[in-house]
Formats: sequence, C-alpha cells, structure tokens
Amino acid sequence: MEFKVNSKELEKLLSKIIPAVPTRTPMPILENFLFEIKDGQLTIYATDLEISLKSSLNIVTEDNIKIVVPARLLSDIVKSLKETTIHFKFMANKKINLVTDMGKYSISYLDADEFPEIPSVDADKSAKDINEVVINGLELRQAFEKSSFAMSKEEMRPAMMGTLFEFTDEGLRFVATDGHRLVNLLKKNIKAAFNQQYVVPERAVSVLLKILDEKDVKIHLTKTYVSFKLNDIELITRLIAQKYPDYSSVIPLENEFLMKLNTIDVHDSIKRMMLFSTSSTRRVKFSIKKDSLDISAEDLDIGASGEEKVVCEYAGDEIEIGFNSAYLNDILNHLSGEEEVIFKLHSATKAVIVEPVQKKENQDLMMLLMPVRLNT
Amino acid sequence: MEFKVNSKELEKLLSKIIPAVPTRTPMPILENFLFEIKDGQLTIYATDLEISLKSSLNIVTEDNIKIVVPARLLSDIVKSLKETTIHFKFMANKKINLVTDMGKYSISYLDADEFPEIPSVDADKSAKDINEVVINGLELRQAFEKSSFAMSKEEMRPAMMGTLFEFTDEGLRFVATDGHRLVNLLKKNIKAAFNQQYVVPERAVSVLLKILDEKDVKIHLTKTYVSFKLNDIELITRLIAQKYPDYSSVIPLENEFLMKLNTIDVHDSIKRMMLFSTSSTRRVKFSIKKDSLDISAEDLDIGASGEEKVVCEYAGDEIEIGFNSAYLNDILNHLSGEEEVIFKLHSATKAVIVEPVQKKENQDLMMLLMPVRLNT
Repeated sequence: MEFKVNSKELEKLLSKIIPAVPTRTPMPILENFLFEIKDGQLTIYATDLEISLKSSLNIVTEDNIKIVVPARLLSDIVKSLKETTIHFKFMANKKINLVTDMGKYSISYLDADEFPEIPSVDADKSAKDINEVVINGLELRQAFEKSSFAMSKEEMRPAMMGTLFEFTDEGLRFVATDGHRLVNLLKKNIKAAFNQQYVVPERAVSVLLKILDEKDVKIHLTKTYVSFKLNDIELITRLIAQKYPDYSSVIPLENEFLMKLNTIDVHDSIKRMMLFSTSSTRRVKFSIKKDSLDISAEDLDIGASGEEKVVCEYAGDEIEIGFNSAYLNDILNHLSGEEEVIFKLHSATKAVIVEPVQKKENQDLMMLLMPVRLNT
Repeated sequence: MEFKVNSKELEKLLSKIIPAVPTRTPMPILENFLFEIKDGQLTIYATDLEISLKSSLNIVTEDNIKIVVPARLLSDIVKSLKETTIHFKFMANKKINLVTDMGKYSISYLDADEFPEIPSVDADKSAKDINEVVINGLELRQAFEKSSFAMSKEEMRPAMMGTLFEFTDEGLRFVATDGHRLVNLLKKNIKAAFNQQYVVPERAVSVLLKILDEKDVKIHLTKTYVSFKLNDIELITRLIAQKYPDYSSVIPLENEFLMKLNTIDVHDSIKRMMLFSTSSTRRVKFSIKKDSLDISAEDLDIGASGEEKVVCEYAGDEIEIGFNSAYLNDILNHLSGEEEVIFKLHSATKAVIVEPVQKKENQDLMMLLMPVRLNT
C-alpha cells in the first residue's frame, strides 16, 4: 500500500492536528496520529481523550488501512523538508518508508486497535437532538480572547474550568470566572433557535484559539459533546458535565458610583504598582476622591512603596478600595483596545464592574473584579 | 542629599550594568547596585565576584555618598517610567524617594560596607606591567560569536571553560574547545606589542556579547585581571588562572582528503538527521565516495532511520565516519554565512577540520570536530 502527498500540504494539515497531541501523558498511544485511509481519503486524528482533532486529504490509493504513527516525529520530518512529493510506502515489517527526492526516512507504525475511539457528535447516542449554530471564526476567536483568561485553574469546581456558552433570546453569552474576576460578554448578533447552556473546557478553548481563522465555524452541540467544524478541520470536545454557577447573582446591579479613566493611564500606573505589590496579596489601593484617583502599593518585606495620581472623572462618595494588582492588570490587558474604561463602584467590599465606555455594536462586554481587604 | 536624572538616560545605563547582577546567589548583597557619588559623578557598579561592570553619569550634587540599592527593583521602576525627570532624595530612614511628575516611589538602601570591593586593573598589585590593546567592538563581537559556543561547560578542566586570547606575531588568536570540537580563529589585523596567553571566562564573554557595539574597546591585561573599556562602560573580569591546554597538538596537519560541500545543503541534511539521532551518542554517519556523500542516522529505540545523498566534490579514499550530530550542527550554524565549506579528513578515527572555502581578509577560521565510533 502506498500513496503520494505534497510535503507542504501535509505539513499544513499536521500542524493543525498536532495541538490535540498531549505533551505528557500516561498513555503513550496518544502521542500518535491515527491515520485512516478509506475510499481515497486520508483522515488524520489526534486526541488527548478530552478533545479530538481530525482533518482529511484526498489521495490516490486503492487500499484501505487504519494505523497509528508517532505524531511529533512525523510532523518534525515533514516540517524539515522543502516543498517536494513524499512517497509513503507501508512495509510488511511495520515500517513506513517516506521517500523524497532528497532521501529516504523510515518510521515505525502500530496497529490502530489500541487507539481510543474518536467521538463523533452525529454518533452520540445520548443525543436526542443536536443543536446547530454557525459563528464567524474571527468573532469566536475575539470572544475567547476577551474571556478565556478569567477561567479558573482550580479543580475544586470543574464547571469554572470552562467557558459558559449561554444561548439566550438576546444572543450568545460567553461567561468565564474563577470567583475573583468574571467576564460576561454578550454577542447580540449570534442568535440560535434554542436556549441552552453548555460549558466548554479550557483546553478546547486554547486549541481553538490556535486554529480559528476568518472562516465560518459550524458548531454542533449535544448534551455530552460539542463539535467545531472549521473549513478543513474539526474539533470535538467533551462538555463539562457540571452546571455552571449562577453568575448573574454575583453581578451587582446598584453600583451607583462611576469613575471614568483613560485606559492606558490607569494600566501603566497598575503595571508600575505591580513592582510594589509582590507579596501574596498583591494588593494595590485605590483612594478615590472627586476627579482624582490615588493608586498606591507597599511591599513591607522589601521596604518599598509607590504612589501615583491618575486623572479621572468621578463624582460619587469618597472610597478606599483594594484590588489584586495581577487580576486588575489582566482585566486592563483585555480592555487595552478601549480608549476609556468606566469603573462602577458601591463600597470597599462589593464587587466592582469594569466596562469600556465606548460600546461596540451588537456586543455587551462587562468585567467584574472582587476587591481585597485593605486592613490586613 | 539629592540629585535629578533623566529616566531614559538612567534606564540605558542600568540596562548595561544589570547583566553583571547574578540571578541566583548565596550572597544577597550582590543583587544590589553599588551607587558611588563623588565630585558630581554618579558611578554605578554591579558584580558577581567573577565579573564587574561599572558606568558613570554626571549629576549635580554637593555631597558624596556610597550606598547599595536593590538592582532589579530599581531597574524595573526606571524602565516602567515614561521619559521624565527622576528626583532622587536620600532620606534618614534608609529610604530613597524617587519623585517624578507621575508619582512617588520609595525603596530601601543599605550601607556600602558589605559590598565586595570591585577590582581595578590599575590597582592590581600583582601587575608588574599592564598590557594594552585596542580592538574594534564589532570585530571582538564577531570573534566571540564564531568561537564561544565551543567552550567547555565541565568544571573538570577550568581553563577550557574560557576562551583563549593568544597574542602572537601573526595576530590575535581566539581558541575555544571542549575536547570534542575546537574553534581556532586568527585575527591577523589585531597586533599587540607583546606575546602572551590569557584565558577569559565564559561569563565575561557572554556579558560582552550583550554590550559590545561598533565602538573601539580598550583592553587592559594583567596576570590576574582583564578590563574591557567600552565607550561608556567598563567590564572587569578575573582571568582563569590555569594554563590553556596545548590546542595545536590536536590539530592534524596531514588531513589530505578534501570534501567541498554547499553549506546550506549539508546543514539542512544534518538538521533532518538530528530527528533520527536522538539517542545518547547522537550519531550521524557520513559515507563518502567520489563526488557523493551519503548521510544517515538511525534511532533503534524508536525504530526510525533516515538517509540522504548530498552532492559534494571529493576525490580521496572512500571513508565511513561518524559524528555527533548536535556538535556538527553547532559548527555548521557558526559557518552559516559561508556559501561553501571544506571538510579535511584522514580516517574514521582522526579529527576532521571544517573550514570556509572563501577565506576572509585578515582572518583564518578553522573548526575541528572529533569523530565518534561507528561500531558501537
């Protein structure tokens, strides 16, 4: 059995599949690609048991075959070649010879028996009905970029280790939170024929961020799996089987004190204050008076401190409030495209809302940050 | 006591001094800059006990003072500021206040008593005479770039952990070797009034690579120290107090078989073969016949192998010879600017010389690589 393929075409395909190959795994079989050749089509799969990627290529061959090949070695070989034709020859001794006009390379393959089954949304038996929605790739990427940083890394509450996709009458809402900060992004232009919540795990989001492009993405959702069909590649992931916490209950509705700030000014100041908030609390203090914000931080261990004045528009009660400087920096990083931001406050102990002043069409973006105590 | 300084000017100066600050040290005092203010000049020092860097800045102040300040914190603060004037104010409570139009920062300082003495070549008591030579900064950088990779990392033979500066009648020779490969670079246009050997430690070379520019470098050498005076900064390093091994005895004189290769062709091939030479020997095999070089490698652990043919000009005896692919890759990396290279061979067990075909004016560059055994 043999076939030929262009090296650059194969390289492009492998580079899109390889993000699903785990770097460290107790199951060495997962460090392989599954090659399935059927009816003149080569389909390549990779999985880490949570997410799977697959993509296909038309080839000229008579035979059908299903084997596994070492993912990183094959990918490295193909990447190292100039543009050329690679002639794959499957030998009887469990070797594949790759012959090019430069030379000949030989790698071992294994039978596909041990490779785990790749789930397919269509074959998901638990699915009474499959929901479908189409989202532009760039819009999906931008939603993940704005929200994914706030997902939790702690395994205590598995649902918070994913991003909530909430389909509502208003549009599609993306929510991510780790209990300290929360991002709530409503895309009003993404409407579906169903109202439902799904929690997509962090690894699926981070792999999607690597492969999403400007093309439309077809999304199929069942109770257990979601599949993202891009132009030439499909990602299937298990959904997190836990109910997402009731995020709306933590969003304060009556934060009546509004502080308007130039985003770059306050962000630059926070970056400097991070140099002085290196202790475990990473605390930075905001002292807010009429039209004046004093930001300060102090590191008692190294005997260093900093304080700056930032111009703001503020007319509420005087407030002193503390934040984790790293979390605030994260939030401002993800609002860096905005000229001005507004902080909505109520008191030193209540969650603060941070939003862009300039609203985007079809989009509501809200970030929430819990304060830290000042008197510890 | 106080003074003012432009933030960008200070940033530039600190960024040149900070490479001498050790990242991990059992002596926390070395994580500080020494600030010496004397007669209207601020001189900043850093040292890791092996190398020292110093640089000066004119300031307006009446007082003289000698203190130490946390190097990374100060450097990070200054870097984080926009261009502005920093007003340094030394307070009685061992604090320095840095006041700018943005805000006020406070850091702790210590007395300079505990800071180690910075050696000075002029004050080196062991120096009966001080040798001096001037080298263009770019030429010195280029010599280090070509040779420094071959220095040994093993503490068994301390001299080989440095680069040999050998001043001879022919010019200045740079030699670096770890026993497996050797670089021998003669700069014929750098002549000195003395013939002498000095061994400069690795850390001095790597810091110089960060700070050398196109300006001339004044070098002062004693038996114990060498100082490199750049435009606005001086590096002083202890010399390695061991005799450098007799490198010339390992350079074969009668390698009569010459193989000429296109540098990119052979280098690309070696890079691919490295994928198949991942075992401990990292062995790649050259099978050399008339005008034909077969390069091959095999990894028995993973059952993979590769072989390629590279066009060459060769008219000697047929030879099969093995190399460590990583070392050969290093050598070819450092000859990547050369269109063609020549391999000078004698037998499968004798050192091989690799040289550029096109000689540069005023320069002899020779690399040497020990073969590895094929029958293991």
